[in-house]
Amino acid sequence: MSAEPAPVPKTPEDVRQACRDGNWTGHTAGLAPGYAQANLVILPTEYAGDFHTFCLRNPKPCPLLEVTQPGIPTPARIAPSADIRTDVPRYRVWEHGEAVDEPTDVLSLWRDDLVGFLIGCSFTFEAALMRDGLEVRHQVRGTNVPMFRTSIECEAVGPFAGELVVSMRPYSPADVVRAVEVTSQFPQVHGSPIHVGLPELLGIDDIAHPDFGDAVPVGDDELPVFWACGVTPQAVLESARVPFAITHAPGCMFVSDVRDDQLESDAP
Amino acid sequence: MSAEPAPVPKTPEDVRQACRDGNWTGHTAGLAPGYAQANLVILPTEYAGDFHTFCLRNPKPCPLLEVTQPGIPTPARIAPSADIRTDVPRYRVWEHGEAVDEPTDVLSLWRDDLVGFLIGCSFTFEAALMRDGLEVRHQVRGTNVPMFRTSIECEAVGPFAGELVVSMRPYSPADVVRAVEVTSQFPQVHGSPIHVGLPELLGIDDIAHPDFGDAVPVGDDELPVFWACGVTPQAVLESARVPFAITHAPGCMFVSDVRDDQLESDAP
Repeated sequence: MSAEPAPVPKTPEDVRQACRDGNWTGHTAGLAPGYAQANLVILPTEYAGDFHTFCLRNPKPCPLLEVTQPGIPTPARIAPSADIRTDVPRYRVWEHGEAVDEPTDVLSLWRDDLVGFLIGCSFTFEAALMRDGLEVRHQVRGTNVPMFRTSIECEAVGPFAGELVVSMRPYSPADVVRAVEVTSQFPQVHGSPIHVGLPELLGIDDIAHPDFGDAVPVGDDELPVFWACGVTPQAVLESARVPFAITHAPGCMFVSDVRDDQLESDAP
Repeated sequence: MSAEPAPVPKTPEDVRQACRDGNWTGHTAGLAPGYAQANLVILPTEYAGDFHTFCLRNPKPCPLLEVTQPGIPTPARIAPSADIRTDVPRYRVWEHGEAVDEPTDVLSLWRDDLVGFLIGCSFTFEAALMRDGLEVRHQVRGTNVPMFRTSIECEAVGPFAGELVVSMRPYSPADVVRAVEVTSQFPQVHGSPIHVGLPELLGIDDIAHPDFGDAVPVGDDELPVFWACGVTPQAVLESARVPFAITHAPGCMFVSDVRDDQLESDAP
């Protein structure tokens, strides 16, 4: 490796190559702009069937972009040249619900019975909101999106069960309508909000104290708007305490070849 | 005419024929289900240009379904066999902003310089909300929709200016999202809401006292949702005090040949 700092990779292939070469081990927010990033979950076939069904029954928190074939580390649909064992900046390895390691590749852990799940991420719809002229408050502030555990139970499948986690972005009453319209067009990346206003009905006591991420102010002339969040499947996986699993490390997403606008749908 | 009561007309052509024959002079709510009804405004060409521009600049309260040619009383696009001089149950004739008559036809008032404006009506999107399983509170209660004057000024054109009038329907925080999604598909009949929650920001002091129509209860677990309303152009017309105009009488709409689902669009 050169002693000079690695250049910031621009294209999806650049990002993945930099991860593969060990030259990029940090967050992926803002990398390869215009391309969809994905949450990654890798499970043995023994658990993959139930987890797949869990995602299909809970599509708002777990919108599936692709499920790989057992033992084949290639997401043929969203990035045919990629390898999910090497192309994420940093992984998290789980044993019985405990994070035991954070390697930069999982080649030595790979097995013929492992299945990868690539799950849509809100980066895509946030870009669409901003293209429409709507502010994304936490991005303006340079902080992480505020996220809250709710009292809404996901539909359980096998060992996979738990509460829905939501992200929150505040909007004026007119922009609430536009935010629903814009994000409805992206069902593969969490889609439309699950709730507007009245956080107490979700079991959220204090909007100023999120369970994950950073608080953002909500004006007197604004309503909090809540979207299903990709942290839900990670929380569910943790509490299921399966013997072995791999995920991306927080903020270190898989960058796909799919353009954000290819995930735009006319069917809300 | 027979002494027996007239049968309730079922098809758009039946409704219009019954109006033309003087056999139907009442409200049109519920008639010819599945077909779009329209607000009617008739103006001399001297004012029609400004009013047309007013509608185009204020499409949410004034979504134009059709504008007739001067002197030709046929809405060729939405009901080619109809005559706008006879086919509405009851008309209202205006002189200098005052209602001076409510005839059942306007044949004797027709002139070669009159232009008809047919403006979409919320009956169409209410049917879509109910098909989606969403309650339309005032319909369940058998009352008229609650409507409010707001502090939002329409974009003025010539003598046509005034405040936006909105209709209100209450929904739970999750159903707010669905109501936006459903009505976004109907831009030609007012489309998506203009505001959710926080009525004080619209200049509405008391949600329990509408300016027009009947109040409906809004639960603690609900938000009031506001749509632009077809009463807006009538209020604007009244305050413009043009020398001569004709409209439909309240609730006595023009029934078109266009099916509600033909007004459904994929472009919100």
